[in-house]
Amino acid sequence: FRILFLGDVVGEPGRKGVATLLPLLKEELKVDFAIVNGENAAGGRGITPKIAIGLMRAGAAVITTGDHIWDQKEILPFMQDEPRLLRPINYPSNAPGQGTVVLETKRGKVGVINLQGRVFMKEGMENPFTAITEAVTEMRKETPIIFVDFHAEATSEKVAMGWHLDGLVSAVVGTHTHVPTADERVLPKGTAYQSDAGMCGPMESVIGSEIQPVLERFHTAMPARFGIGKGAVRLNGVLVTVDPTTGKAMAIERVARTWHE
Amino acid sequence: FRILFLGDVVGEPGRKGVATLLPLLKEELKVDFAIVNGENAAGGRGITPKIAIGLMRAGAAVITTGDHIWDQKEILPFMQDEPRLLRPINYPSNAPGQGTVVLETKRGKVGVINLQGRVFMKEGMENPFTAITEAVTEMRKETPIIFVDFHAEATSEKVAMGWHLDGLVSAVVGTHTHVPTADERVLPKGTAYQSDAGMCGPMESVIGSEIQPVLERFHTAMPARFGIGKGAVRLNGVLVTVDPTTGKAMAIERVARTWHE
Amino acid sequence: FRILFLGDVVGEPGRKGVATLLPLLKEELKVDFAIVNGENAAGGRGITPKIAIGLMRAGAAVITTGDHIWDQKEILPFMQDEPRLLRPINYPSNAPGQGTVVLETKRGKVGVINLQGRVFMKEGMENPFTAITEAVTEMRKETPIIFVDFHAEATSEKVAMGWHLDGLVSAVVGTHTHVPTADERVLPKGTAYQSDAGMCGPMESVIGSEIQPVLERFHTAMPARFGIGKGAVRLNGVLVTVDPTTGKAMAIERVARTWHE
Amino acid sequence: FRILFLGDVVGEPGRKGVATLLPLLKEELKVDFAIVNGENAAGGRGITPKIAIGLMRAGAAVITTGDHIWDQKEILPFMQDEPRLLRPINYPSNAPGQGTVVLETKRGKVGVINLQGRVFMKEGMENPFTAITEAVTEMRKETPIIFVDFHAEATSEKVAMGWHLDGLVSAVVGTHTHVPTADERVLPKGTAYQSDAGMCGPMESVIGSEIQPVLERFHTAMPARFGIGKGAVRLNGVLVTVDPTTGKAMAIERVARTWHE
Ligand SMILES: [Fe+2]
Ligand SMILES: [Fe+2]
Ligand SMILES: [Fe+2]
Ligand SMILES: [Fe+2]
Ligand SMILES: [Fe+2]
Ligand SMILES: [Fe+2]
Ligand SMILES: [Fe+2]
Ligand SMILES: [Fe+2]
Repeated sequence: FRILFLGDVVGEPGRKGVATLLPLLKEELKVDFAIVNGENAAGGRGITPKIAIGLMRAGAAVITTGDHIWDQKEILPFMQDEPRLLRPINYPSNAPGQGTVVLETKRGKVGVINLQGRVFMKEGMENPFTAITEAVTEMRKETPIIFVDFHAEATSEKVAMGWHLDGLVSAVVGTHTHVPTADERVLPKGTAYQSDAGMCGPMESVIGSEIQPVLERFHTAMPARFGIGKGAVRLNGVLVTVDPTTGKAMAIERVARTWHE
Repeated sequence: FRILFLGDVVGEPGRKGVATLLPLLKEELKVDFAIVNGENAAGGRGITPKIAIGLMRAGAAVITTGDHIWDQKEILPFMQDEPRLLRPINYPSNAPGQGTVVLETKRGKVGVINLQGRVFMKEGMENPFTAITEAVTEMRKETPIIFVDFHAEATSEKVAMGWHLDGLVSAVVGTHTHVPTADERVLPKGTAYQSDAGMCGPMESVIGSEIQPVLERFHTAMPARFGIGKGAVRLNGVLVTVDPTTGKAMAIERVARTWHE
Repeated sequence: FRILFLGDVVGEPGRKGVATLLPLLKEELKVDFAIVNGENAAGGRGITPKIAIGLMRAGAAVITTGDHIWDQKEILPFMQDEPRLLRPINYPSNAPGQGTVVLETKRGKVGVINLQGRVFMKEGMENPFTAITEAVTEMRKETPIIFVDFHAEATSEKVAMGWHLDGLVSAVVGTHTHVPTADERVLPKGTAYQSDAGMCGPMESVIGSEIQPVLERFHTAMPARFGIGKGAVRLNGVLVTVDPTTGKAMAIERVARTWHE
Repeated sequence: FRILFLGDVVGEPGRKGVATLLPLLKEELKVDFAIVNGENAAGGRGITPKIAIGLMRAGAAVITTGDHIWDQKEILPFMQDEPRLLRPINYPSNAPGQGTVVLETKRGKVGVINLQGRVFMKEGMENPFTAITEAVTEMRKETPIIFVDFHAEATSEKVAMGWHLDGLVSAVVGTHTHVPTADERVLPKGTAYQSDAGMCGPMESVIGSEIQPVLERFHTAMPARFGIGKGAVRLNGVLVTVDPTTGKAMAIERVARTWHE
């Protein structure tokens, strides 16, 4: 069972790249299930219903997100009605939306959990280690094929989460830093792990944003609004091969493609 | 001109791995100049004079460090007398030690600059963008072959630094997160860039530390002292090929080797 | 019913000042119940069993703490057996110790809750707003006289907590910044509030620590161990007058005394 | 020589309170020179030219600010032409505006310096300890009467700054937390010090903002826009009496007035 996951889609360039390449990738890599993190799809800031629908049409079965999820207000009502658009599960309990979903596929049920870290991130989220334990226990009653998108900054928290979930889920893949890491591996008890999937966005950029304003801000400490970068788009993701009966990962490999308009 | 850089050496396992493999790597990869980040070489916390000498004997021409540089007090007097052991250059001006060095080699002069980021890191450092501009301007009077170890947490700050220095130095390679990134490339004006080199340390660990105590701390928020992890040691680094007359990078590739006692 | 609360006792000077003045203050102010925050009583870092016993002998019915609670390891077993020594209640559920206590007095039951903030503090604590709501609901079944020590950094979080608990507890008084605030008042529904009680420690100091090393650290960004400051000791606290039948606060006033050896 | 300083003016309620009471206070307290921090005067976010002019007409000789200074874009060109509107001096050198001003008064020259802290604040500012030393050295060539508004979060940094400047300036008064502190004193070498002046804003608020949305955000971790609070307005400030020939402070006292429309 092959799951393709693409990291944070950034702005129009990222969306176009995904719309063009995701269908091809699914065929080329014989993907059974595709997940895309869309937290920066709307100009770098959140996601709109229209954009979410576009990503699903391009082939994403589930869209995960992260700290930017509420940047576009119109996403709130949409999220209530669309179980395949997730926000991190460890928001306090009265937050709108959902952090998990289980979907039927031709080859069995697949569960996806969206989770957010706390180290170096805005305070307010519940303990991700506690939250995920509950969510996984619950989900394993339905299916052993579980993919976790851990949206977090610190490598310590991410790697620790990988070990924490080893043997309990099929894959733990990080997002949020927008830079792919080269530490993909299958952990001893069968969980595929990679600290960050990287982004789907323009290469001539600072993690998606225009270069000059970012540099200026680092020099002057003055506030600046960043547009989206330009140039060729790099799609970063991972392909995880899972034993569908046990849910154990058999392989994980980085996937990267460059697309130019 | 080929420069090998190895990321944060963690504890005894990391040191042993480097002592064993660095000489072999230098030969295998025809390395002209080797640099090693040693900020975690002493049990994960700083570096001692003895350990620094050991790393140099193993083949490191220069040792860079980072936020852990002062963890072992004995390093202070040693650093004053050893120009090849660097601490980040953007400490306030009255801090002991040095952040740059230029060394003669058979094939010309090579400069190394150690720099530290500020985003998500302890406050107190001077602006790295300002500091590096001065240091590079000065160093380019002596040599165009310049390697920058940017010890930083946030990908935004690291990628921005790459663009800031593009065309001014041979390479900007990050350290500190202990996880290698898969974003190595030569930027348009000739600077090799990679967000993080990764560490040289045990694979059964959370970025070098024992797994169980780290997991416990994330669950309980109780303080914990972390020992060093175990298992096979992974050496992570990068190899940069530089045109010695212009200082421009011609290639950058990730280097990784596994070593088991 | 008169409750005297003294803020963070810092080191030996703070302890001596409290030992000398607390008995006198209790008499002078006709105090029915005294609470002392002891998180910095052991040389600025945590508290030991011996010191805790000393503060109780001096007249503290309950000792609250904060983020420094685990600095001295010997406090762990002691805390298990001493219900009158509290640590913040919003540690994850498997942490040792307790965050609340209800004690009988001649004039009725008094409850104390120790709580910790999250803004600008180490991550890992559970949501204080959620945690306190549960704890207060539970405690009000036993007594309406409830004192909350909210150990937190940010004024926004502290003031918000005051409003959140207005009408539910007798008093919300902050600690942790070591500087008393001049915003004491009884909120509209009857809860006494003050953002910070201030510390009980030496006046010639930086919030309790020796001045010179602190200044040097701010100048150099080098690590430094801080001793305890010197000079006269300032005891800072608040006196809250509560209607014992309703638990409503009738008055809150700052209390400050200077003591010199 | 009597200097009145009012802390962060928040929104329309704060502005109206200042406009009404500042003229009366100046007369009542025989104020020679009035300074107002206006960083939140425009709906809590920055300050506009019109508002700045209004505060000056109400009697402020100088307006200091802080981290919110750039929230309103129109302030940038205005600031270039108005030397009496300050932004923190420790912005990197190429930032617009000025951090110091010296003004002639009937009773001699008065200097004002605006400075910003770094602990728990957005990174990017230069070292305030280094920056202020230079600025004070320079300013003392013109006048010994110097008032420093240190806009900072952490009490450690603020108190340390007080000691650092003791004997070099007439007063160091903090702003930014919006809560007045009760630690006013004249330090041994003659500098008046208070950690925070508090705000000029509505009392039924969380440091100026509407209560309900703030509480909701602490409960849900969802983003929220905060309006300005309501109810009576509290003006918080300090009155510093300075020996005009030496610049030494002779006294510092808190000033607080309540105003209701
Ligand atoms: Fe993102
Ligand atoms: Fe994110
Ligand atoms: Fe490191
Ligand atoms: Fe580091
Ligand atoms: Fe404390
Ligand atoms: Fe504390
Ligand atoms: Fe403010
Ligand atoms: Fe501020």
